[in-house]
Amino acid sequence: MSSTQHLIDPALIAAENDKLQPAMTSDYAHLGEQLARRGIDIEAVRARVAGFGVAIPSWGVGTGGTRFARFPGQGEPRHVFDKLADCGVIQQLGRATPTVSLHIPWDTCNDWSELRQTATAWGLGFDAINSNTFSDQKGQAHSYKFGSLSHTDAATRAQAVEHNLACIAIGEKLGSKALTVWVGDGSNFPGQQHFRRAFDRYLDSARQIYAALPGDWRMMLEHKICEPAFYSTVIQDWGSSFLAAQTLGPKAQCLVDLGHHAPNVNIELIVARLIAAGKLAGFHFNDSKYGDDDLDAGSVSPYRLFLVFNELVAAAHEGVAFDPAYMLDQSHNVTDPIESLITSAVQVQRSHAQALLVDRTALDAAQEANDAMTATHLLKAAFQTDVTPLLQRVRADAGGAIDPVATYRASGWRQKCAAERPAVAGGTGGIV
Amino acid sequence: MSSTQHLIDPALIAAENDKLQPAMTSDYAHLGEQLARRGIDIEAVRARVAGFGVAIPSWGVGTGGTRFARFPGQGEPRHVFDKLADCGVIQQLGRATPTVSLHIPWDTCNDWSELRQTATAWGLGFDAINSNTFSDQKGQAHSYKFGSLSHTDAATRAQAVEHNLACIAIGEKLGSKALTVWVGDGSNFPGQQHFRRAFDRYLDSARQIYAALPGDWRMMLEHKICEPAFYSTVIQDWGSSFLAAQTLGPKAQCLVDLGHHAPNVNIELIVARLIAAGKLAGFHFNDSKYGDDDLDAGSVSPYRLFLVFNELVAAAHEGVAFDPAYMLDQSHNVTDPIESLITSAVQVQRSHAQALLVDRTALDAAQEANDAMTATHLLKAAFQTDVTPLLQRVRADAGGAIDPVATYRASGWRQKCAAERPAVAGGTGGIV
Amino acid sequence: MSSTQHLIDPALIAAENDKLQPAMTSDYAHLGEQLARRGIDIEAVRARVAGFGVAIPSWGVGTGGTRFARFPGQGEPRHVFDKLADCGVIQQLGRATPTVSLHIPWDTCNDWSELRQTATAWGLGFDAINSNTFSDQKGQAHSYKFGSLSHTDAATRAQAVEHNLACIAIGEKLGSKALTVWVGDGSNFPGQQHFRRAFDRYLDSARQIYAALPGDWRMMLEHKICEPAFYSTVIQDWGSSFLAAQTLGPKAQCLVDLGHHAPNVNIELIVARLIAAGKLAGFHFNDSKYGDDDLDAGSVSPYRLFLVFNELVAAAHEGVAFDPAYMLDQSHNVTDPIESLITSAVQVQRSHAQALLVDRTALDAAQEANDAMTATHLLKAAFQTDVTPLLQRVRADAGGAIDPVATYRASGWRQKCAAERPAVAGGTGGIV
Amino acid sequence: MSSTQHLIDPALIAAENDKLQPAMTSDYAHLGEQLARRGIDIEAVRARVAGFGVAIPSWGVGTGGTRFARFPGQGEPRHVFDKLADCGVIQQLGRATPTVSLHIPWDTCNDWSELRQTATAWGLGFDAINSNTFSDQKGQAHSYKFGSLSHTDAATRAQAVEHNLACIAIGEKLGSKALTVWVGDGSNFPGQQHFRRAFDRYLDSARQIYAALPGDWRMMLEHKICEPAFYSTVIQDWGSSFLAAQTLGPKAQCLVDLGHHAPNVNIELIVARLIAAGKLAGFHFNDSKYGDDDLDAGSVSPYRLFLVFNELVAAAHEGVAFDPAYMLDQSHNVTDPIESLITSAVQVQRSHAQALLVDRTALDAAQEANDAMTATHLLKAAFQTDVTPLLQRVRADAGGAIDPVATYRASGWRQKCAAERPAVAGGTGGIV
Repeated sequence: MSSTQHLIDPALIAAENDKLQPAMTSDYAHLGEQLARRGIDIEAVRARVAGFGVAIPSWGVGTGGTRFARFPGQGEPRHVFDKLADCGVIQQLGRATPTVSLHIPWDTCNDWSELRQTATAWGLGFDAINSNTFSDQKGQAHSYKFGSLSHTDAATRAQAVEHNLACIAIGEKLGSKALTVWVGDGSNFPGQQHFRRAFDRYLDSARQIYAALPGDWRMMLEHKICEPAFYSTVIQDWGSSFLAAQTLGPKAQCLVDLGHHAPNVNIELIVARLIAAGKLAGFHFNDSKYGDDDLDAGSVSPYRLFLVFNELVAAAHEGVAFDPAYMLDQSHNVTDPIESLITSAVQVQRSHAQALLVDRTALDAAQEANDAMTATHLLKAAFQTDVTPLLQRVRADAGGAIDPVATYRASGWRQKCAAERPAVAGGTGGIV
Repeated sequence: MSSTQHLIDPALIAAENDKLQPAMTSDYAHLGEQLARRGIDIEAVRARVAGFGVAIPSWGVGTGGTRFARFPGQGEPRHVFDKLADCGVIQQLGRATPTVSLHIPWDTCNDWSELRQTATAWGLGFDAINSNTFSDQKGQAHSYKFGSLSHTDAATRAQAVEHNLACIAIGEKLGSKALTVWVGDGSNFPGQQHFRRAFDRYLDSARQIYAALPGDWRMMLEHKICEPAFYSTVIQDWGSSFLAAQTLGPKAQCLVDLGHHAPNVNIELIVARLIAAGKLAGFHFNDSKYGDDDLDAGSVSPYRLFLVFNELVAAAHEGVAFDPAYMLDQSHNVTDPIESLITSAVQVQRSHAQALLVDRTALDAAQEANDAMTATHLLKAAFQTDVTPLLQRVRADAGGAIDPVATYRASGWRQKCAAERPAVAGGTGGIV
Repeated sequence: MSSTQHLIDPALIAAENDKLQPAMTSDYAHLGEQLARRGIDIEAVRARVAGFGVAIPSWGVGTGGTRFARFPGQGEPRHVFDKLADCGVIQQLGRATPTVSLHIPWDTCNDWSELRQTATAWGLGFDAINSNTFSDQKGQAHSYKFGSLSHTDAATRAQAVEHNLACIAIGEKLGSKALTVWVGDGSNFPGQQHFRRAFDRYLDSARQIYAALPGDWRMMLEHKICEPAFYSTVIQDWGSSFLAAQTLGPKAQCLVDLGHHAPNVNIELIVARLIAAGKLAGFHFNDSKYGDDDLDAGSVSPYRLFLVFNELVAAAHEGVAFDPAYMLDQSHNVTDPIESLITSAVQVQRSHAQALLVDRTALDAAQEANDAMTATHLLKAAFQTDVTPLLQRVRADAGGAIDPVATYRASGWRQKCAAERPAVAGGTGGIV
Repeated sequence: MSSTQHLIDPALIAAENDKLQPAMTSDYAHLGEQLARRGIDIEAVRARVAGFGVAIPSWGVGTGGTRFARFPGQGEPRHVFDKLADCGVIQQLGRATPTVSLHIPWDTCNDWSELRQTATAWGLGFDAINSNTFSDQKGQAHSYKFGSLSHTDAATRAQAVEHNLACIAIGEKLGSKALTVWVGDGSNFPGQQHFRRAFDRYLDSARQIYAALPGDWRMMLEHKICEPAFYSTVIQDWGSSFLAAQTLGPKAQCLVDLGHHAPNVNIELIVARLIAAGKLAGFHFNDSKYGDDDLDAGSVSPYRLFLVFNELVAAAHEGVAFDPAYMLDQSHNVTDPIESLITSAVQVQRSHAQALLVDRTALDAAQEANDAMTATHLLKAAFQTDVTPLLQRVRADAGGAIDPVATYRASGWRQKCAAERPAVAGGTGGIV
């Protein structure tokens, strides 16, 4: 474990792990035997999985809500240091989430250097930084009610650009290498917005941000079909995102949030298109049944998550040069956010591990021969493999918990937080 | 005009109307001539339209928002009396919204009698009363985080039932004749909720509310496919709503909100089914492009709104006994809510008027002969008719404004409110 | 193996199985060990799985197509005896499909007694019989272009009723116990059909069919949101299906085809509602990404299929009295239909087996405590379990193939059919 | 009327028109008066509308069907000359459809020169030519079962390319200036197709076709989310279409079929994006409620059709250089195709005319001021205007029928065809 400070007592983790070790060892051995039969070296897979990480969004450790209500949980983080601590717990137990993705201004603090040192002490780094021009902050000169980067008013656009530049500056202090730009700009009525002009204004603003990017940074454009705007959005789909990224230049790429698409859309196909076009920035992982539900990754459609990773592993296997950023982006309305984030990271890891098990030589042959049945069997064979013992080993080897949620519950972390952090009142809605 | 007090100076209305009168008169005459050619007496249609009203939801006069942000407008109502005043303005100018639908506890006040008198003075009555068990109120004993009427905990269910009984009691003081029950109960994860038991608990609770209904009241059950729960909801569609209403008894009926359905669903067909089953309670009108967007009624899909009214007018024409309640239910995020509500009421009225123009004898014949082309032409002929002058006349005759939005703008009402009502801070989100 | 005649040489099966036996035995032993740790007796699960069967639709063994084209496969069945043989092969190898579901008039034959004897010889029985009033047959007096059971013309309705009675008569000869009624009735234009009258006519016709049902038969009503009618359908959703089934009587129940719903709809929730209402007839299993795609069961959304079985197993576990019929209903456009049906039956069996592994006591407790995380973990723990060795054992024990698709390919059955059965020309479309 | 030969007796048209002339004249005069009040010169609008035309697809004059059945109509065209005659009737009566779009090989004939002369005699020209590589033709060397331009087999791809080159050659003989390429290529199973390689193969094939385009031709790429492939398609959305068109070069553009999108997608926004990117090829007009329903244009969502035209008229108004091709593409399953096509052309014309009525100066101002209510009112004011008399005048002035469907029925054309053209047997399905 690289961190020097422990948020959870390592002795507790060890004690919990001791109970589960025999079963894990037996299961791991049998999995190894099974994979060997298929010509797969479990140790090689384990090494790949151990090297994989997904970022935690700082806002994810607070309880989410809907426009109807927010029902606060116990011991919610009060500020970015509390959030960081919760992320540290997630990483200490799960070992799959070595970075945190901040959101400005929600995570504003007075001493970025202290924040970075604290993170390092807890074994955490910083992933992409997220700007926020979809809500107004107190004292803000211009409102984003009618848009930000694409607003009709030049001063409002300038303010939104300025905020993004400030985010880059903060990110540089923290070691981030990317800026994620998602805007709520759009319209609620036919005619409200001139589609082409709004897109042009967005591009003008985005160009100014792009120009300010440090040399080794990326600008990740996030599209969304709707919400908060409900008739049209400025970057509504991957087509518009791609058009914008292409216009801006090579450092601009397209971020895929799994919940931001129209119903029925084949997301893994979009991933393949963006890889081919050299424009895949990375992911906001979550799951959805109806829209941008922000449910836990893989909780409703685990096979879809696997199919996304199948594209990623295939491209890597074929030597395509790309480097996607992975982040969770979920709204935890009815669970302890720490439990959800640990579980979701494991689910993402599971999909990655399963995708590594696909027999790509056989798959290539089946695809070439149009043997759809064999091809789909090969994917299913990988997906149906229970890689649980492999994921357990990766965690245990790195000092994490074999059963991270059970160990978390045993740690009493939430109770400790509840005692230290006063409750945040929930919204009563009023918005229906 | 039946109200004795004027919120907007009638002289202003008259002056504005004077400017538009000649065009209206000419257009009305020509429309009358056109309709006469089709065998329709414009005066008879006008009488029908004049008798039609749609309720204003009290919460609709405040600016809405999303889980990302709320951008307050100027002069927002501070309490139920302010809301009532805004509703009074809407009714004075538009003459199509004679009733208000309250939401408890948002509209709680100390003196219901005073509220009722004030309403009467402004020419307003009270439509269905809405309970709220989808958000927690300060000091509430049990949280609705995991449900209300269907909660696993009996005390929580009892509290939710009690709240509904209190709503009925308030409604009785105001002259309401219906209770609308919409719950946010459901789940966000497969397995979280036992579907059958949750439904049974809902029914148990609902039975207690039903038992407390005054003899001439209705209980209107509102279904919704998702949000705030994003994996399952307890009353997810008209099928479940119907099952519940049938179990409860004749006073329980199904309310149709136009935005609460799965994508692509044929809502006018559901309306027809509920009419046939004797279970149509009424409507929450709004429009949607992606989900429960709560856009202004008919702003995106005006023909769909017409097709809903076509079912209603057809059933009335055939002597089916039913009495649907009409209410707007919209979220006004980017417009002045008063303007949106006036406009939406006119849009609903327009759809009703157009549906009255359908040649039902010819339609029956075309349907019987499977002459799809003629049948659909007959609907389109009604829909394409510009009934604007007819709606203008209905308003003008009742003391309203020929162009109600223009007159509203001319009245300075919003500026007056802005001066009197201090701004309400908008949410900054924190929920993504 | 109960059949006395072998379509595939048992020696081949035995030889193929011999190769896979060691791995299966090892995997089965380890699975047994894993399940024992969870307190599950693998032998008990095996017995339950061995007793489970899903019917093969006779039309499924032919190559499907779309309105654009049909690309015939090799050795397609020429008549019902060929279809039966293909079903026999599926059952001999897979041991999960002991019955066949016929479609009249596609499966009409001259000697039903011979057909039944042949089926018995091949170890097959007959499941529900399907009527067809969605296409016209040569020489038919009245066309179904504008509907069948709900047609405006009484003679057409009578003809459709008559056809259903004929289907019942055939079914009685074959030992069927159910009639599945799916109609294409609906409309393509607003106004084309009078919604309420069409539904009434449907009910009138259905009543006549219902009246002719033998005492131990069921009438299974199948709903569908669209296609072939594209504006409205007469039985569009489970609500209408339920309304009809309830009107008809206790022998009428609602059949759920997984591809017949609006986008995003929670099908497992509908299953739970129908179980609670005592109206679940059974299933047409398939998978879909966009609509009624008729893809192979579980090929796109395996977790959804599991969640459906979770409802079924839960209801059985709780002693709910119900007896759903299980049938595959897929269109095999790009695969050998026999391979698809074997694979799909295994997938259905897999979902059933996994659902049997859910710790229902722990799930009840988690649901009662609103511990969503634990509840959903319990489902995932069952779903992630690789039950492949258990399914292999069930097949092997019953004389089937451990790897049924590989054994099928080794058998040369398709090549034999190709030699014996001349190619059927594919459609060239003309319908775009 | 430019044609020298009359398919329908002009005396009949004149007689029918005489009956409707007085009402039309009165309505036109009043509409002119209304528009004048808004500052619009009705004569200028009329000239614009008179210059607008939409192409008829040759296959549209036959009765369509679904994969379940095709119910033939009376007097269906037997060959391309019959189809051309039906198109001639549509154009003679409706005067809005001066061109025909052919489909090869469905419209193959022995003497293209004779076909062109016949067309000229009936007042018709030829629009884009459509290739067909989504179904197999008799005697074809390689099957398209597993794809065409993107097939894994080089010979199959070459055959598909060759067919497109043949289409171009035919188009040149007829005076076409564009090739429309829609392929059914895709997959039905996860894993069946290598997404990136399939796209690359598509591009390789498309490049060969592109290279063969005459200098003044365009290649119109048509995307579709699904059907006939039901898991993935090679050109699934406008993003992929754009990527392909951009790769190919300036003569390649993106064709928008209104039914080829995911649910809820904002099509008018896509139109705006393609206009901005200089890549809008044109349209296949139809309407849809559930998928690629191919319903009559504007029959379900007339406002959406208007909003598409609003984008087109706005771009033209602002001087954007673009030249979209307009074509109907519908499946007429329950109507007389000639009636549907006449009606749909009028509906498209109506949307165009209404879009011309939008006050663009006022709209610009409202958009700039974020006055969403005024902006959307301006669109609605245009849409609610009943432009029927204007469309009638355009037809009457050009020698067409004021009420083209009524005149068509009066002409007895269908009865004449029924007598001359023997019935084509309908499919009995077999594909479920």
